[in-house]
Amino acid sequence: MPPSGIRRRPGGRSARVRATVLAAVDALLAEVGDEGLTLDAVAERSGVHRTTLYRRWGSVPMLLVDLLDAGTEDDWRAPDTGSLEGDLVAINREVHAALTAEPSVTAAVVAASFRSPEAGEALRRFWEDRYERCAAVVHRAVERGEVPPGTDPRRLLVAATGPLYHQRILLGGPLTREEADAHARAARAAAASGLL
Amino acid sequence: MPPSGIRRRPGGRSARVRATVLAAVDALLAEVGDEGLTLDAVAERSGVHRTTLYRRWGSVPMLLVDLLDAGTEDDWRAPDTGSLEGDLVAINREVHAALTAEPSVTAAVVAASFRSPEAGEALRRFWEDRYERCAAVVHRAVERGEVPPGTDPRRLLVAATGPLYHQRILLGGPLTREEADAHARAARAAAASGLL
Repeated sequence: MPPSGIRRRPGGRSARVRATVLAAVDALLAEVGDEGLTLDAVAERSGVHRTTLYRRWGSVPMLLVDLLDAGTEDDWRAPDTGSLEGDLVAINREVHAALTAEPSVTAAVVAASFRSPEAGEALRRFWEDRYERCAAVVHRAVERGEVPPGTDPRRLLVAATGPLYHQRILLGGPLTREEADAHARAARAAAASGLL
Repeated sequence: MPPSGIRRRPGGRSARVRATVLAAVDALLAEVGDEGLTLDAVAERSGVHRTTLYRRWGSVPMLLVDLLDAGTEDDWRAPDTGSLEGDLVAINREVHAALTAEPSVTAAVVAASFRSPEAGEALRRFWEDRYERCAAVVHRAVERGEVPPGTDPRRLLVAATGPLYHQRILLGGPLTREEADAHARAARAAAASGLL
């Protein structure tokens, strides 16, 4: 990229640098976890100079903040399998995969969120965005008559996914895919009975 | 306490010092959270000299470890209301109260567990102990025929309590008692249908 390119397409180059750096952060989290995430490691991995990283992001927690905020700008959509049970099982399998990856980017980001208030707020923004997108699953289930109209989308989604996060992140226990499926089916059945 | 007392009843005095110090740690966590928990603050609050604290516990995380380990030695028992629903609602109300206290000792200990591996392991030992004691609730429900014999106590208890921890600690959202009750009832209904 010649210097003239910077002048002609500052947004384009800036966006590419951001994408390159965030991809490096994501890869490092998946390989070494948040303990191994340093500005030097990100500079080496991304090929972007440490000074640039420092000037633009300032610190490792702010890199995580940007990674999480970038997640709220992606085109992820909740699964649409045709049934509430299918959708909840699909969501829980995504959560299961994220939580049981070794090392888990999700677990690394959660750990970082307890060390940096900014990272904590970014993680909550990211999750709020994901739960809002998942509400579509519950709206469709209400339209299909699978759950009563008063069903609270957030409460139902937290009933399905919350046990996975608790078991894996706070209790630090094993989590099988069968267990993730069971919690999805349990939440669906309770919601169908008007309990959520 | 005269010096001769130390020689005659070292265990007694030692146990009293421990109880005094751990009560101070507990009180400080409830008043200022884990950020305000320092050896100096514990010394001032407990009246036990900082040198003694340092010699016996070494660091603030190790004080938390001991507080959590002391919790596994207490005589707490799972509620026994006569029905699975009553027991799960009672458990969830305890969790709700612990998570919504301002500041919350539980939230403070969880935050500390992400900063100190020893505190993290102690917190997991504490929770494992609590979930094991709560398994009695499920065993009684099986005996009463409220849930099928194959019901997994741990899975059912995590289905009831996990959404509370997720909503409050990881998502950082509000948690009403009505919501805590709803998750208890949802888990009971799902277990009664053989889903947990």
